Amino acid sequence: MTDLKTLIDRLSGLDFKTMFADDFFLTWEKSYDELMATYTVADILRAMREQNISPRIFDSGLAVSLFRDNSTRTRFSFASAANLLGLTVQDLDEGKSQIAHGETVRETANMVSFMADVVGIRDDMFIGKGDSYMREVSLALKEGFEDGNLEQRPNLVNLQSDIDHPTQSMADMNHIITSMGGVEQLKGKKLAMTWAYSPSYGKPLSVPQGIVGLMTRFGMDVVLAHPTGYEIMPDVEEIAVQNAKASGGSFSKTNNMAEAFADADFVYPKSWASFKSMERRTNLYSAGDSEGIKALEKELLAENANYKDWAATEALMATTAGGKALYMHCLPADISGVSCQEGEVDGSVFDRYRVPLYKEASHKPYIIAAMIVLSRIKDPVAKFEELIKRNTPRFFV
Amino acid sequence: MTDLKTLIDRLSGLDFKTMFADDFFLTWEKSYDELMATYTVADILRAMREQNISPRIFDSGLAVSLFRDNSTRTRFSFASAANLLGLTVQDLDEGKSQIAHGETVRETANMVSFMADVVGIRDDMFIGKGDSYMREVSLALKEGFEDGNLEQRPNLVNLQSDIDHPTQSMADMNHIITSMGGVEQLKGKKLAMTWAYSPSYGKPLSVPQGIVGLMTRFGMDVVLAHPTGYEIMPDVEEIAVQNAKASGGSFSKTNNMAEAFADADFVYPKSWASFKSMERRTNLYSAGDSEGIKALEKELLAENANYKDWAATEALMATTAGGKALYMHCLPADISGVSCQEGEVDGSVFDRYRVPLYKEASHKPYIIAAMIVLSRIKDPVAKFEELIKRNTPRFFV
Amino acid sequence: MTDLKTLIDRLSGLDFKTMFADDFFLTWEKSYDELMATYTVADILRAMREQNISPRIFDSGLAVSLFRDNSTRTRFSFASAANLLGLTVQDLDEGKSQIAHGETVRETANMVSFMADVVGIRDDMFIGKGDSYMREVSLALKEGFEDGNLEQRPNLVNLQSDIDHPTQSMADMNHIITSMGGVEQLKGKKLAMTWAYSPSYGKPLSVPQGIVGLMTRFGMDVVLAHPTGYEIMPDVEEIAVQNAKASGGSFSKTNNMAEAFADADFVYPKSWASFKSMERRTNLYSAGDSEGIKALEKELLAENANYKDWAATEALMATTAGGKALYMHCLPADISGVSCQEGEVDGSVFDRYRVPLYKEASHKPYIIAAMIVLSRIKDPVAKFEELIKRNTPRFFV
Repeated sequence: MTDLKTLIDRLSGLDFKTMFADDFFLTWEKSYDELMATYTVADILRAMREQNISPRIFDSGLAVSLFRDNSTRTRFSFASAANLLGLTVQDLDEGKSQIAHGETVRETANMVSFMADVVGIRDDMFIGKGDSYMREVSLALKEGFEDGNLEQRPNLVNLQSDIDHPTQSMADMNHIITSMGGVEQLKGKKLAMTWAYSPSYGKPLSVPQGIVGLMTRFGMDVVLAHPTGYEIMPDVEEIAVQNAKASGGSFSKTNNMAEAFADADFVYPKSWASFKSMERRTNLYSAGDSEGIKALEKELLAENANYKDWAATEALMATTAGGKALYMHCLPADISGVSCQEGEVDGSVFDRYRVPLYKEASHKPYIIAAMIVLSRIKDPVAKFEELIKRNTPRFFV
Repeated sequence: MTDLKTLIDRLSGLDFKTMFADDFFLTWEKSYDELMATYTVADILRAMREQNISPRIFDSGLAVSLFRDNSTRTRFSFASAANLLGLTVQDLDEGKSQIAHGETVRETANMVSFMADVVGIRDDMFIGKGDSYMREVSLALKEGFEDGNLEQRPNLVNLQSDIDHPTQSMADMNHIITSMGGVEQLKGKKLAMTWAYSPSYGKPLSVPQGIVGLMTRFGMDVVLAHPTGYEIMPDVEEIAVQNAKASGGSFSKTNNMAEAFADADFVYPKSWASFKSMERRTNLYSAGDSEGIKALEKELLAENANYKDWAATEALMATTAGGKALYMHCLPADISGVSCQEGEVDGSVFDRYRVPLYKEASHKPYIIAAMIVLSRIKDPVAKFEELIKRNTPRFFV
Repeated sequence: MTDLKTLIDRLSGLDFKTMFADDFFLTWEKSYDELMATYTVADILRAMREQNISPRIFDSGLAVSLFRDNSTRTRFSFASAANLLGLTVQDLDEGKSQIAHGETVRETANMVSFMADVVGIRDDMFIGKGDSYMREVSLALKEGFEDGNLEQRPNLVNLQSDIDHPTQSMADMNHIITSMGGVEQLKGKKLAMTWAYSPSYGKPLSVPQGIVGLMTRFGMDVVLAHPTGYEIMPDVEEIAVQNAKASGGSFSKTNNMAEAFADADFVYPKSWASFKSMERRTNLYSAGDSEGIKALEKELLAENANYKDWAATEALMATTAGGKALYMHCLPADISGVSCQEGEVDGSVFDRYRVPLYKEASHKPYIIAAMIVLSRIKDPVAKFEELIKRNTPRFFV
């Protein structure tokens, strides 16, 4: 555990002032320093909690959650982050029909935010919708504040959109940094973001997109591997190309899983649906074509079944750097012989990486809390120094 | 923003001591000073929050919510109010059948209240049931406390009954007072509470009843307008008559929307179902007659469709005082060409009043919090002075 | 009300140090002193709340609740206990299928616990499953902590398993102790835990099992009465036999309700399903045999109907000690002529004991809070002295 003073010194050396009063939609909209500030604040919050120093900055306040898809992990991470800072989560359970047009988005955004400090949104199911919905909410909150309806402008945290899943990719990255003992160790390391077979269908694209959109920022050699037809959004690929160029790393694509795994330091094998089929699904939903949706599901499951050999097997893992690549996953994984007959990963591989996987997941609440802190606190360095001096125990043990 | 000292001085001049340890069911059970105390405390809480002074008076405690109907706005308002004061909302999701007879009401009231400071109930769907259910809960809580089962008697806030919707009408009234720059400006002003066409059916009567039952307290000329057949409860009309007499204003009725709008300073056009049809529906539900309910719904929708010209059009708005009446609504409104083809209000009218409408809604959390404070705090003047002196920031920005 | 100093002195004389950092599964796994410490801490927390001294020991933290069965009373009790201590409840609503095998239990336990201080589980429906599920979660939390995934090991509170219902039986026992004016008054007193007729089916065994497993610890003469075929788990009966031997009381069984009631000081008449039929049900559920489940339900309801005379009638109550046995129930009761035609208890009997019944229930939140305190606080005596000295009001009245 890095000590608090070192972490706060590190934070004070970074330039992240534009994060104040701003939202977090996509990692590639944030500067390198802003990403590093997020990791550093996450580490500070974790260290404070470990040392039983309460990082509570709100005496009251609401963290509104708007989940347009089921979720256990992200819901608990958001609730944990809010609670750690003193906010109470209030869920907005809204039928999809009620927020179908711009009119009501603006109204809803205002109605739930009179005492909100943060709004967390998960809206990842429909291509071309999630991110734009979040921007619409954000704009409505900005207007609501400027018009004097809201006493403060709550900040928005993207808890998963159709484009990016920043709380996941940022947690994953902090796991990598922690595992390697520092971000400066990442240059030249190879990361394989690969498709993997799952007996289920339609898993969101935001994870692979989030990973290649973020991991290319740190000088790594990032390989995206998937069967033909499982393409991610072209715009995000372009981001990855630009990122790699700027960071001195590389971004490449392959349709060969073995090639991606060869000598990799990090492997992230995971199922997803192709960009194009998700676009088709979105259109079928818009048209209310339930027969079409069923037919598409059947077609996609059949297509998936052509690629059952895309799995993180022991044999493939043995080809990674020293046979010891860090296996990563956002969980839950489809584990062959455990949660399904044939899936994304061999049972023995998953089992060997269970502790690192749980550690990977443990970063998410702190990443979310860090995003909240950086959007709400003008001078976090001074504030942390004050909180540490105040030294209120989190728990009067 | 009125400064805190002025507001607290105003509060200290009012007589509201019987609100302590009492419930809030109907505005017409409260004295004029008690209404004014509620507005003043709402304004104090708002000013404290704006100045980042925490008005938290509970270190722990529950605010039990019992919603017997769906709700987003009132739920968030109640959650915001509870949170601001330090209470945690605990929802009681109870099947309707379980609380069908007095036996279980008494038991439920005790079981959920061992650590409750407040109980908020919304029960507006069935004529003749909601208010009496709340009184039954209130009596049970009183007995539970006197018998020593409960360590404190939690106070009840009516979050909408079949008779009144006091958190709505009080928020609406504080919006009027704020817009006019003081309650003393209201004498002689004209307010039109009018029915309006909606393509949906069975909207609660508690809003128009709450409005005419409250707005007649301040010397205004209140007009209730609706087509024949859309009568509200006669008892509430009688209250309005008496109120107007006592306050030096007037209360009149018309079946002509234009007459109501003419020279009005405030207009509140909104759909509702008639008292008698709601009584019929209640009886059909009691009899479990689902065919009868469907037939009634069809009949009432057809009846509504006879009055599509009852809408807040630009033409009608132009006939109000200076063409600039304050358009009011409890939201969500049925907006012609936006949320429905033909509805309660023209899109352009709604759009012009969007900011005032959201401000109107913004009063509700503070009104609810004020009701809680006045029912739980014996000497609010002293307590507010203490809280301001303590000066704990709501948010350690 | 015993004064705080006396209670804290009593606590300091007890040996309960192994409760720290431990779970609460079954009362018979706890020593006599540990049971007494739980009652004493419950009484301390209650006295502090009555005297408006906040017993809040957490500045933030989550109390995760995992209810695998509907519940109002236990849910509110858990929420109240958590809130009193400063924890926020976060519900884990999980489909049964998702947590069907060891793999996912371990993962789920870790994923929801990154910031959890307590996990409360209710899993009572399936014989042979609930307790073992809780132990699996407990083990996973222990491993998660040892592996460094979790910063603290949250403690587990059994909110009802297939074997025991300790928060209920402990609340019931504290009600008895309070009613009698001290645990030393219980020696030689007679308690009848008897089956009673209910028109419903399949009520859990954990209540009668919990009662005979706990009440035999205090030198009472405990009688378990039920018709042939309504046997409880043999292992728990054996526990009761051993307990009675050790405490100087007795444990006996009868198939005659009148015999059990004769001269009883406490009567606890309540419906349950037999151990064997619940085992059959569990197997039918495992096999997905819905026809079999329906047939079993029919069979069991028919069987129940043979024993409609098993009810706490006025006549039977008259045969108890002085005609004044303390009537007990975990609520809700099936009351003849009130909530059903024929049920567990006469309406007049229930009505006479309404206040004691609600008092009985009022102990549960404090018992749960006491379990949390004893599992999380290393030196509760010192901590309570500190909290009393700090004297933060629970409510700034």
